[in-house]
Amino acid sequence: MRTVTWESLSAEQQNAVLQRPAITEGANITAAVTAVVESVKTEGDKALLDLTEKFDGVRPESIRVSNEEIDAAAARLPEKMKAALNQAYKNIGAFHQAQKLPPLTVETQPGVVCELVTRAINTVGLYIPGGSAPLPSTVLMLGVPAQIAGCNKVVLCSPPPIADEILYVAKLCNIDEVYNLGGGQAIAAMAYGTETVVKVDKIFGPGNAYVTEAKRQVSNDFRGAGIDMPAGPSEVMVIADETADADFVAADLLSQAEHGPDSQSILVTTSVLLADKVTDAIQRQLAELSRKEIAEQALASSLIVIAESLTQAVAISNFYGPEHLIVQTRNPRELLPLLDNAGSIFLGDWSPESAGDYASGTNHVLPTYGYTRTYSSLGLADFSKRMTVQELTQDGLKTLAPTVVTMAEAEGLDAHKRAVTIRVEKLLAAK
Amino acid sequence: MRTVTWESLSAEQQNAVLQRPAITEGANITAAVTAVVESVKTEGDKALLDLTEKFDGVRPESIRVSNEEIDAAAARLPEKMKAALNQAYKNIGAFHQAQKLPPLTVETQPGVVCELVTRAINTVGLYIPGGSAPLPSTVLMLGVPAQIAGCNKVVLCSPPPIADEILYVAKLCNIDEVYNLGGGQAIAAMAYGTETVVKVDKIFGPGNAYVTEAKRQVSNDFRGAGIDMPAGPSEVMVIADETADADFVAADLLSQAEHGPDSQSILVTTSVLLADKVTDAIQRQLAELSRKEIAEQALASSLIVIAESLTQAVAISNFYGPEHLIVQTRNPRELLPLLDNAGSIFLGDWSPESAGDYASGTNHVLPTYGYTRTYSSLGLADFSKRMTVQELTQDGLKTLAPTVVTMAEAEGLDAHKRAVTIRVEKLLAAK
Repeated sequence: MRTVTWESLSAEQQNAVLQRPAITEGANITAAVTAVVESVKTEGDKALLDLTEKFDGVRPESIRVSNEEIDAAAARLPEKMKAALNQAYKNIGAFHQAQKLPPLTVETQPGVVCELVTRAINTVGLYIPGGSAPLPSTVLMLGVPAQIAGCNKVVLCSPPPIADEILYVAKLCNIDEVYNLGGGQAIAAMAYGTETVVKVDKIFGPGNAYVTEAKRQVSNDFRGAGIDMPAGPSEVMVIADETADADFVAADLLSQAEHGPDSQSILVTTSVLLADKVTDAIQRQLAELSRKEIAEQALASSLIVIAESLTQAVAISNFYGPEHLIVQTRNPRELLPLLDNAGSIFLGDWSPESAGDYASGTNHVLPTYGYTRTYSSLGLADFSKRMTVQELTQDGLKTLAPTVVTMAEAEGLDAHKRAVTIRVEKLLAAK
Repeated sequence: MRTVTWESLSAEQQNAVLQRPAITEGANITAAVTAVVESVKTEGDKALLDLTEKFDGVRPESIRVSNEEIDAAAARLPEKMKAALNQAYKNIGAFHQAQKLPPLTVETQPGVVCELVTRAINTVGLYIPGGSAPLPSTVLMLGVPAQIAGCNKVVLCSPPPIADEILYVAKLCNIDEVYNLGGGQAIAAMAYGTETVVKVDKIFGPGNAYVTEAKRQVSNDFRGAGIDMPAGPSEVMVIADETADADFVAADLLSQAEHGPDSQSILVTTSVLLADKVTDAIQRQLAELSRKEIAEQALASSLIVIAESLTQAVAISNFYGPEHLIVQTRNPRELLPLLDNAGSIFLGDWSPESAGDYASGTNHVLPTYGYTRTYSSLGLADFSKRMTVQELTQDGLKTLAPTVVTMAEAEGLDAHKRAVTIRVEKLLAAK
């Protein structure tokens, strides 16, 4: 890991050192995904089976996973795994349940009542990537809020064969339909629907470059589907002072680095001594990791920044806007009011990122790649939408009328004005 | 207006009759906007002045409107106009102030505390279109929530010359900087910043096809800026039964139609008699409108749907998902729990859309073009973001550890597991 001292850098160098690597999506990915999306739109299920055979190397007997298969998978799962998933389900449920918003009613002036009401998004699609190991935690992070929001229909796609852990959580979250589908074909199927696959309103979940490109394409088409948030490589920043435990900091930086070669791990510390200790601890811990090669690649582009104060460390963090931010300082909570651009914040020595990644209750789907400046941690709000409602009494309208009429006149909108005056005239005539 | 009877249509015809016209953005618009964005990125203020001279026919002495000019505009404005704008400001403020969310804290299991905190987006840019008449109402709809959310810096662009009404509201909302800029160049300037224009995190506001395309382009660039929501033509649906006042319904349909030739006005009614009366009333009222030609064009593609029941009318509305939905039935509030896809709902005879367009308190920036299925009415939430926070005690981590370890093992993520076990081992060793 490279170490830089913040104060010794020019403003330009400070900016450069925290720049994220540009994501270069090859034009070949765009074209390949466009072809996949088109074939799913025109050929439906047939295209899905062909593409699954081509990309996943299996032609499933059925696109939809039957309830019997789901029950059997659940029955097969070891009790210890079930207990862990159940505990995570409970904690994530408690935190997301608390995010429910009661309807809001405000009488802005006598007889003018404005309301804000929440409705679940009707139909949502969850994407769970395949790969070397199953990701049941992501099913929880998407399935629990969908269930609590009360979405009418929740479907899930994952490339076959789908692991028992995923099917178990799908059942736990009461997901309506599970499909043996991965990649761009899964995204296209959910965005446009096929004979078997339900068309959804919004698609959630992580994925590789093809999945990301497919989500981008279907979300740019108003006949497609909405998506959760822009994707980017995962990243962590640790703010630490001289009281931090170097072994813990090293473990946290490594747990980010093992995600992928493009993961970013950045330590910002006021202590040069701690920086040295963390560098040593990383070398020691790295040797024991099964995903050592991946972590090493990620660490090559990672960084230690020496800050001259915690105030400066906070400013660096707010400028970078990390997806995950771990604060290991003497009084971590003191810094919280000053922190603004982050996806999820972990306070103190006993709050490792992996607690939130799996089971504490917070969501692990977070804005990354600088999108923390404008995007939120995934939550109940993303599975619902807010509508406004208003109801005016006769007197309310009469009182508000001069304001509306004056403004409509200024904006040259006659019919807007008439919609008010025609009503007020009728009220006056009725007297 | 065309009239159709819902029951007499096949499912395919029902679908077709409610299809929105496709928005065909010419490739020439895309290319023209790309050129504008590029020149603003490379040449900054110089490009802004050149482009403003080219497109708006004036070369302003200064890009930024001085505080003296703003004060002078405010002083010039007639008292009646100020009173109307002040009243609207007050009502919109009351409704958006009530949307503030207190921080949420949940102890999901003993010693595991999860929080949801809200932060204002740091820097936001508001775009107010020019045109034949000023749009101070849109300044209110964007400026009030930005002010209440507590955004650190709020800037506004509008093509010169900027009307006194707009400058007055900018002052009311305490907007930090106002620029003489319109079109794609305004969007590019706010997304990337120039010598004079502040770079913003997120851009809000309506605009023509060039503005919409520029917003799309800068939001697809992670070094650009976020945007509020996808754009589309404005639309209204009225659900009415035999108790509705045909003059009121006609006035509401017309106040939508006068917005632009692509506006959609749809009446869904259980009463054939009412449908006839509304058609007559539209003809009568149309004659008196200054924007008669525009309204006539919009009405040409508008529609009356005869439904056999209010239940069916509600289903039609939920399927179409109108931006504005006006309910003029005997008991409008009875239908509210059944309505789910709409931007803003107006209940009863005395709640015309123009009340909400200007001054009742609700926001008039709403999802349209079917995006009501997944997007919300603009509100305080759009000017802020939610971060999660967690803090575990030593005992909290010890209790949660087996769950995290089991799940990390299932996902093959060693370092995630180590970040927990290294801490628990230290706790056990310290005993």
